[in-house]
Amino acid sequence: MNAEREQAVTDEVVASFGHDDRLAEVMRSLTTHLHAFAREVRLTQDEWTRGIEFLTRTGHITDDRRQEFILLSDVLGLSMLTVGINAAPEPGATESTVFGPFFVDGAPGIELGGDIASGAKGTPCWVTGTVASTTGERIPGARIEVWEADDDGFYDVQYTDARTAGRGWLTSGDAGEYRFWSVRPSCYGIPDDGPVGELLAASGRHPMRPAHLHFMVTAPGYRTLITHVFVAGDEYLASDAVFGVKDSLVVDVADHPPGTAPDGRELTEPWASIEFDIVLAKE
Amino acid sequence: MNAEREQAVTDEVVASFGHDDRLAEVMRSLTTHLHAFAREVRLTQDEWTRGIEFLTRTGHITDDRRQEFILLSDVLGLSMLTVGINAAPEPGATESTVFGPFFVDGAPGIELGGDIASGAKGTPCWVTGTVASTTGERIPGARIEVWEADDDGFYDVQYTDARTAGRGWLTSGDAGEYRFWSVRPSCYGIPDDGPVGELLAASGRHPMRPAHLHFMVTAPGYRTLITHVFVAGDEYLASDAVFGVKDSLVVDVADHPPGTAPDGRELTEPWASIEFDIVLAKE
Ligand SMILES: [Fe+2]
Ligand SMILES: [Fe+2]
Repeated sequence: MNAEREQAVTDEVVASFGHDDRLAEVMRSLTTHLHAFAREVRLTQDEWTRGIEFLTRTGHITDDRRQEFILLSDVLGLSMLTVGINAAPEPGATESTVFGPFFVDGAPGIELGGDIASGAKGTPCWVTGTVASTTGERIPGARIEVWEADDDGFYDVQYTDARTAGRGWLTSGDAGEYRFWSVRPSCYGIPDDGPVGELLAASGRHPMRPAHLHFMVTAPGYRTLITHVFVAGDEYLASDAVFGVKDSLVVDVADHPPGTAPDGRELTEPWASIEFDIVLAKE
Repeated sequence: MNAEREQAVTDEVVASFGHDDRLAEVMRSLTTHLHAFAREVRLTQDEWTRGIEFLTRTGHITDDRRQEFILLSDVLGLSMLTVGINAAPEPGATESTVFGPFFVDGAPGIELGGDIASGAKGTPCWVTGTVASTTGERIPGARIEVWEADDDGFYDVQYTDARTAGRGWLTSGDAGEYRFWSVRPSCYGIPDDGPVGELLAASGRHPMRPAHLHFMVTAPGYRTLITHVFVAGDEYLASDAVFGVKDSLVVDVADHPPGTAPDGRELTEPWASIEFDIVLAKE
């Protein structure tokens, strides 16, 4: 009998949103699933109160530099699920993964073969590959945005000194080729000194992401690709805090002793290299 | 094939919360239902972004005086559902409804027959009834907290002048009886100048609540009752913005011409009266 009364509440709320537009469709579904959750776990008043407090703290820690709601979406896998819903896999195309909160519009452009490190701490890393279509045509002039954390596990925007480092963009050459210097990607923890960090700790989950380099690749006539390249062998590949890993995106990083790099650069320290070929789906 | 890949994301997230405590149980269920929602509506990246922005604005408008997340829970019917989950109906007992955001701890105590209006604008209203158990025993000494909006539709705490009005508490007499003066309840709009108000407007929903008087009744050995008494005939009874109405809580309000009230008070203006008998469930 209580089940019927509970269903009646849900029915009343669902009906209140009407039937005639996308907002109504979204809100009816959201309400239905939110209520199903509360009924399934028999949500207590105390848990409801703690949920309200959690969301309140999440809102209060969020500002221009920090987006705790995106972090929450990330650790609940909603961000990755949304990526999957919107980038239906196309055979042969490079897979997508989460965008993350650390992209910055207006990063510096570099020449082919230039360096995006701009002083970011870490082992120099030579990244090369091609941009092509699923039918094998090379794509010249594709815009390739890359960004990454430094060897201490921090993006430039996480420092307070307004530095720009570990990010930039270039365009692929006449044969769709690209190459640039960066630093060897390192694993890092997502910000865990707020409500999301508390949730992870209380759940026995770590905040670490396996080492990766972010890519966003755009070319006219092709779907925008937002993805990472992950470093094979990273200890967090099987437990990414934000569930972003796909097997096809994991590549071997080659480590080299000091010496001459393929572009003629003389290195007095060890360096690394990554090959990552990018395949774009047609629009 | 995409369905399988999407389910794999959900499975991975669900597994990350483990299996051994209440938090894990709640988070597994929450994640499962949240993902089911996103898949069902095929949530777009733009909708995801607007959801993040909505929650951010909801967090930023929330402060010590305003709780927009509770308002959101209210208009999504989650508050009322949680009340229903936690107050399983007991035959013969008065039904529960939402607590709302306007209760204040430490309201003034009054004598039996006293006045909680304290200057709140509105038609004087004489409220009487009894407190009894489901087996008919009268309950003396029950603590009865009442609070209500004034005739302009505002609670005292919504004014900036720190007034206390339209709220107070009393204890039932030797035969479980109670009586007090208040003002005739009036309908009111929940605060709609924030994100929740935008959601209501975009959904074609009004922000109004039907006229009601809040009760919280406690007595040793009995379950605490949190409820309202609603005014029969109110135009918003069938469309309460927070879904709080239950038929058993709707009572007739009698309207009287100026004259002598039952307690001997001489009224030079019209006045009203409400009878509301309260039945508590045993703990
Ligand atoms: Fe990252
Ligand atoms: Fe109210």
